[in-house]
Amino acid sequence: MLGCIIACAPVAAADRAAGRDAEIHVWLDRWAAAFRDHDLDAIMAMYAPDVVSYDIVPPLQLVGKAAYRASYEHFLAQYQGAIEVEFRDLRIIAGEDIAFATMLQHISGTQKGGQRSTIWTRVTAGYRKINGAWLDVHDHVSVPSDFETGRAQLDLVP
Amino acid sequence: MLGCIIACAPVAAADRAAGRDAEIHVWLDRWAAAFRDHDLDAIMAMYAPDVVSYDIVPPLQLVGKAAYRASYEHFLAQYQGAIEVEFRDLRIIAGEDIAFATMLQHISGTQKGGQRSTIWTRVTAGYRKINGAWLDVHDHVSVPSDFETGRAQLDLVP
Repeated sequence: MLGCIIACAPVAAADRAAGRDAEIHVWLDRWAAAFRDHDLDAIMAMYAPDVVSYDIVPPLQLVGKAAYRASYEHFLAQYQGAIEVEFRDLRIIAGEDIAFATMLQHISGTQKGGQRSTIWTRVTAGYRKINGAWLDVHDHVSVPSDFETGRAQLDLVP
Repeated sequence: MLGCIIACAPVAAADRAAGRDAEIHVWLDRWAAAFRDHDLDAIMAMYAPDVVSYDIVPPLQLVGKAAYRASYEHFLAQYQGAIEVEFRDLRIIAGEDIAFATMLQHISGTQKGGQRSTIWTRVTAGYRKINGAWLDVHDHVSVPSDFETGRAQLDLVP
């Protein structure tokens, strides 16, 4: 057999699409809760072993979970207490077992020195459904760059 | 009917996955050719009307094709002659009608003032298959930021 038979009622297809969007929403809410609480193990359990991350800080890319974990650990260590995350303009595009989400993220918290820190970033996350669970296989987090001045645009607001 | 019947031979599924990866490769090669030639109409024909772009330059996001076209136009106008693009560490993750690709991109060309310009960027692109054709619904292009100095890392190499 060289082909597939796929037969769905439209209403069922729409229901399943809504269900997948809801599953990615759950992923994001769980991630935000773990991030807020500095729960590095809970965060990393949501990533695939072969995750490739384009992080907001150098280097250009982080390949694999160990490298990304080290970057998370370094980031979280700069904050004391809860790190709050707000999602804005969230868009989820989800298929049967591949999905991606795009959003603006507002990250705010208090740094170890006591100063308040807030930043708006752009985030793209790519997912695969593996053994029934959505795992993040790709993160891309950034702010725009100003080529005239060479400055990272760390203080933009949407 | 509330469910779906999906029956595929493994070999056929692998063939179809390889076919989808090849289709995204074709998209990327067509994009690179159009970009090299400053062919703005050809570039924009490869995007969906509701594309959301997180571009390398401000603002935080560009919503819709008109805004992204204006950004492309501004970028292309800075170069004279061909703009060469090299893909590195390309990864394509493609489902039936949703896909995304991640890669490092080396962009090089000669600016209007005569100076040579090269940069390595990180690119994530999200696609939907619409009426049988893959259209880009999301681009995210960036370089990392150095939080100590506030500098955009425009000269990193992989």
